[in-house]
Amino acid sequence: VIDVAIVGAPGYAGAELTRLVAAHPKFRPAVLTSAAEAGRRVGDVYPGLGPYVDAVYVEPDPALIASSCKVAFLAVPHTAALEIAPALCEARVTVIDASADFRLKDASVYEQWYGIPHSEPDLLSEAVYGLPELDRSELPGARLVACPGCYPTAALLAAAPALASGIARAERVIVDAKSGVSGAGRTPGPGTHYPAVSESIAPYKVTSHRHAPEIAQGLSLISGVETRVVFTPHLVPMTRGLLATVYLDLAEAIPVEDAVALYRERYFGEPFVTVHDPGRMPTTLEVRGSNRAHIGIAVDEASGMLIVACAIDNLVKGTAGQAIQCANIVLGIEETAGLDTPVPVV
Amino acid sequence: VIDVAIVGAPGYAGAELTRLVAAHPKFRPAVLTSAAEAGRRVGDVYPGLGPYVDAVYVEPDPALIASSCKVAFLAVPHTAALEIAPALCEARVTVIDASADFRLKDASVYEQWYGIPHSEPDLLSEAVYGLPELDRSELPGARLVACPGCYPTAALLAAAPALASGIARAERVIVDAKSGVSGAGRTPGPGTHYPAVSESIAPYKVTSHRHAPEIAQGLSLISGVETRVVFTPHLVPMTRGLLATVYLDLAEAIPVEDAVALYRERYFGEPFVTVHDPGRMPTTLEVRGSNRAHIGIAVDEASGMLIVACAIDNLVKGTAGQAIQCANIVLGIEETAGLDTPVPVV
Amino acid sequence: VIDVAIVGAPGYAGAELTRLVAAHPKFRPAVLTSAAEAGRRVGDVYPGLGPYVDAVYVEPDPALIASSCKVAFLAVPHTAALEIAPALCEARVTVIDASADFRLKDASVYEQWYGIPHSEPDLLSEAVYGLPELDRSELPGARLVACPGCYPTAALLAAAPALASGIARAERVIVDAKSGVSGAGRTPGPGTHYPAVSESIAPYKVTSHRHAPEIAQGLSLISGVETRVVFTPHLVPMTRGLLATVYLDLAEAIPVEDAVALYRERYFGEPFVTVHDPGRMPTTLEVRGSNRAHIGIAVDEASGMLIVACAIDNLVKGTAGQAIQCANIVLGIEETAGLDTPVPVV
Amino acid sequence: VIDVAIVGAPGYAGAELTRLVAAHPKFRPAVLTSAAEAGRRVGDVYPGLGPYVDAVYVEPDPALIASSCKVAFLAVPHTAALEIAPALCEARVTVIDASADFRLKDASVYEQWYGIPHSEPDLLSEAVYGLPELDRSELPGARLVACPGCYPTAALLAAAPALASGIARAERVIVDAKSGVSGAGRTPGPGTHYPAVSESIAPYKVTSHRHAPEIAQGLSLISGVETRVVFTPHLVPMTRGLLATVYLDLAEAIPVEDAVALYRERYFGEPFVTVHDPGRMPTTLEVRGSNRAHIGIAVDEASGMLIVACAIDNLVKGTAGQAIQCANIVLGIEETAGLDTPVPVV
Repeated sequence: VIDVAIVGAPGYAGAELTRLVAAHPKFRPAVLTSAAEAGRRVGDVYPGLGPYVDAVYVEPDPALIASSCKVAFLAVPHTAALEIAPALCEARVTVIDASADFRLKDASVYEQWYGIPHSEPDLLSEAVYGLPELDRSELPGARLVACPGCYPTAALLAAAPALASGIARAERVIVDAKSGVSGAGRTPGPGTHYPAVSESIAPYKVTSHRHAPEIAQGLSLISGVETRVVFTPHLVPMTRGLLATVYLDLAEAIPVEDAVALYRERYFGEPFVTVHDPGRMPTTLEVRGSNRAHIGIAVDEASGMLIVACAIDNLVKGTAGQAIQCANIVLGIEETAGLDTPVPVV
Repeated sequence: VIDVAIVGAPGYAGAELTRLVAAHPKFRPAVLTSAAEAGRRVGDVYPGLGPYVDAVYVEPDPALIASSCKVAFLAVPHTAALEIAPALCEARVTVIDASADFRLKDASVYEQWYGIPHSEPDLLSEAVYGLPELDRSELPGARLVACPGCYPTAALLAAAPALASGIARAERVIVDAKSGVSGAGRTPGPGTHYPAVSESIAPYKVTSHRHAPEIAQGLSLISGVETRVVFTPHLVPMTRGLLATVYLDLAEAIPVEDAVALYRERYFGEPFVTVHDPGRMPTTLEVRGSNRAHIGIAVDEASGMLIVACAIDNLVKGTAGQAIQCANIVLGIEETAGLDTPVPVV
Repeated sequence: VIDVAIVGAPGYAGAELTRLVAAHPKFRPAVLTSAAEAGRRVGDVYPGLGPYVDAVYVEPDPALIASSCKVAFLAVPHTAALEIAPALCEARVTVIDASADFRLKDASVYEQWYGIPHSEPDLLSEAVYGLPELDRSELPGARLVACPGCYPTAALLAAAPALASGIARAERVIVDAKSGVSGAGRTPGPGTHYPAVSESIAPYKVTSHRHAPEIAQGLSLISGVETRVVFTPHLVPMTRGLLATVYLDLAEAIPVEDAVALYRERYFGEPFVTVHDPGRMPTTLEVRGSNRAHIGIAVDEASGMLIVACAIDNLVKGTAGQAIQCANIVLGIEETAGLDTPVPVV
Repeated sequence: VIDVAIVGAPGYAGAELTRLVAAHPKFRPAVLTSAAEAGRRVGDVYPGLGPYVDAVYVEPDPALIASSCKVAFLAVPHTAALEIAPALCEARVTVIDASADFRLKDASVYEQWYGIPHSEPDLLSEAVYGLPELDRSELPGARLVACPGCYPTAALLAAAPALASGIARAERVIVDAKSGVSGAGRTPGPGTHYPAVSESIAPYKVTSHRHAPEIAQGLSLISGVETRVVFTPHLVPMTRGLLATVYLDLAEAIPVEDAVALYRERYFGEPFVTVHDPGRMPTTLEVRGSNRAHIGIAVDEASGMLIVACAIDNLVKGTAGQAIQCANIVLGIEETAGLDTPVPVV
């Protein structure tokens, strides 16, 4: 059994990590930190977790983590990971970071989008981007993993096979994405107030969302050319789920069956990816609570466009599940450990 | 007071027409037809309407309508309007058709998408497309109005100023649209079953939705070139509301402020259209229950793309409200009559 | 036209009052106050209201209100009404108070439940409780109206006829109530955060909700005996709507048809009350957005219990609509003015 | 590994059983039957189950089940279980019946409420009622288990300790219950149509719901006196979750702390029951997806009433999870096998 720490444990990402760690055959939630909830029992904050995690939130303390845990999951806001990761890495704790702090490989892009200089360029350079389906080769033994954002996870899984194979042109990709409200986290605010969200679908941060440069970085790496990403996120009245509808220019006409076959070949053997038959599109409900990504493909012949939709659960494959998946690979555990449980159909 | 008939009155479009007619200063709901609910009181089917509409649904009968009504609203499925409209037009009843039967001006396109030949080519040719903000000139005195579909209403309002002015190229337009469940009507089915819809956003009929050719027809008319439309509708877990997020290629770079100014000039004086300030995007909640269309505009400079989002209530501006608006214009009543009531903010 | 002020205008009760005043044939929203939003346009806060209310929120100022308005609606938290009402009453502004400050006639009960002494015992004594269906006789010409809480409105309308007639015993009444989230107001918090509310029905403040003594006061007045109220509110995942399911001990066996007849006789002529046929229960959807109260009645013969369910919209009949209704009566305007518009069926 | 059959596998109860069996350490889903979906793959009906259950639905056939399975779960409508259970029992297949057919021990009560005579009185007499927390003594080795309805599960768990201990009087118990929509099953209908359910809380089948006699039977057994149950179910706009708010007359005054202590003593060691601290009430969200029952207790001193709320997931502890729990006990497997996984907090 491997003792792990979850930093920022009572947030939604942290709570999802807590549940997945508690159910994991090899992990044990040894240290759960929270500045805001320190001293409270897990079961007092989350009555549903209480029977499975008999623990008390403690103040975040790298020394405590280092002395008792082999792995630390960071479920904190950006900039907070910058502060705690160095000490943990120094102390040889494997850091799986679910924040945005080590995702953008170019420190100047980080500064441009997050408003502060990146204080750890060496760690940034060392950090491995944790989207196993695109590249799991550098993950085994990594000291610091930067888990992708929820939108980039869906967008990259949707677009990668088409760009890597060259069936679609890489100069410009349109990502129209829709997310459930839990993506905004556990802290209440005007934009997540029930009456303001119900019966409303709302575009937000159009052309200014911080996941745009991360998607562009990923697609450019895949395609080898600089890809411009038009990214339009929308808030949807549901708690969980994220759907990225991606529009790609086909290089030349291709039957939808061939596109599906190409995607299936690319994702052959992937334990968490399903590519649907032509004509079937994924829904967020079918992956709710799971670490799966379901992909549907259509071709608009008249306009020469490939339309790929990818559905994930923003808190699982989009955050906590992917972090577990990365940790499994880093540590040489079976990749699906703790993540292969079927989820309710409704 | 003008007596009106509503054909297909207990469906959602019909019920919305019933409510709007009941609240209209000049209209009176004289004949409410329904084959399925004939004999039942309105208040037995809809307890909320009962106190305002003391009437009984009757079997649809053109002779009855012709003898007692000046106007008939058709809230029936496609093909049913084809059957009843001729007799009503013949009898000099003004027909405001909310179905799809007279929207596509090319009968062969109708046959291609709806699977049957168009049996009334003369009436089709005479029918006026009822989207007043784009062209209200032919509506006064019209004998038959084909009200636009809900998706085309939002898509055309979003794209028209950019195409008409030439700031965007018209060859290809991408419409990523999101609709509430009431758009599927009152008849239950697997796709509108509460547990199947809640917590799910789902693309459907990608590249095959019947509103695609209608959008293409409208955009081609506006731009003067043949416009290919990539149309991806999604079902959203909410009862009402429709958002079209439209992606257009800019002909050349333009500041977002100029794009907003252009849209505001185009829609100056329109009683039901609001163009938001740059940076503000519309939500479906803000137009819920109203006949308004709210538009937000963004420019993605790096990719040269104009992003326009238009939010409407699919049952009001998308269906019944627009039908009333058209009827007002046809009959020379003030265009906003019965439609200018503010709606709840949540 | 009567100029009115709305104090606390951007809250949900205030926004609903703004909409109803804007649509009212005799009222005009002359002064909209808000400490928090002062200086912002109504349309900037609520894009859906903007086209109908071209106004700017101003700081609350009794002198300004007194100099320009005949009526002031108070949509403020309790204790705030205590502060502003005296100056307005003094200045001969009719005050329609939607807060809790003047509902409990016994100042010691107020202090017990609201934690502060009641600073205006004279005004409290003068204030008229504004539930017109139970007693509208003192409303005409009143200087200060205390509008009932949302839960008391539904509970009293449900229980009053049974207690007043003596068919049910008054010693103890059980009110199991369910409310939408907007009842908690516009300020976000952990209990109204979308992910925390969705998919959850939650009892709250059981035996400790402040509406309990108000219901007890009302039922005791009706029955003439001291009525103990068991009051259990629940939060339901919906924006609007309130259902009170009331359990009453029958004095003796009565057929449900007789109970329905008794209720119908009691509410005969009431413009906003519908008593359903035996076997039909009301839903909150059927009154959503309206000032109506719909009542359904069942008799459990074996246990000798009368079950009465009353559905209202918590923000309309439960708050803002009732305030307008009271104002109409106070001022001698037709009682239904501004409130008789049918609302959407879904 | 024990091969099991699920009869009626594509319904919601069946799908939930499928997921739980697939995740169970000792069970394997060997035969999944469905008359309607026979021939379709599980993954085609439920894309989320497909990766975990590589199977095809087959026609229901007792001989097939008997030849290959040791246990059969019946997730079929009432009367269908009556038809298939005898052959399975005869063939020595352990039958865990989630339908209503063997719950009411008095065949005449069954006939009164279900409209047909009970055709299997011997089996009915043999059937063991499967609510382990109340009585698990007869379950080991049982041939036929009648799993409780979802409402009775919550109501009985809420009321049993108070009645068994005598702190509450048993003559009459009021159960005001609230259920998510999935309780109505997978078949669409007007009452489960998304637009008809959203924004609506609706009482239904008041005094006439078939779970009323089942609750009465259970409470009477516990208390030893004939208990009359006032049962008012409500439909709530959520997919899952069931809350029973139970009102009991206290025999004499008791502090809430003592009532909580009594409940905790009663449920000491129960793996799936949590009794909250005084002042904390359960929500359905905290048990969503789990087999847990969470209970909150309040005392209304003035009226001498005990208020107990019990939250469960209607499809898990209310149906499929309880069936697995019963099967575990019957077969001598650890009671929590396959049911002890923590679930998401939102």
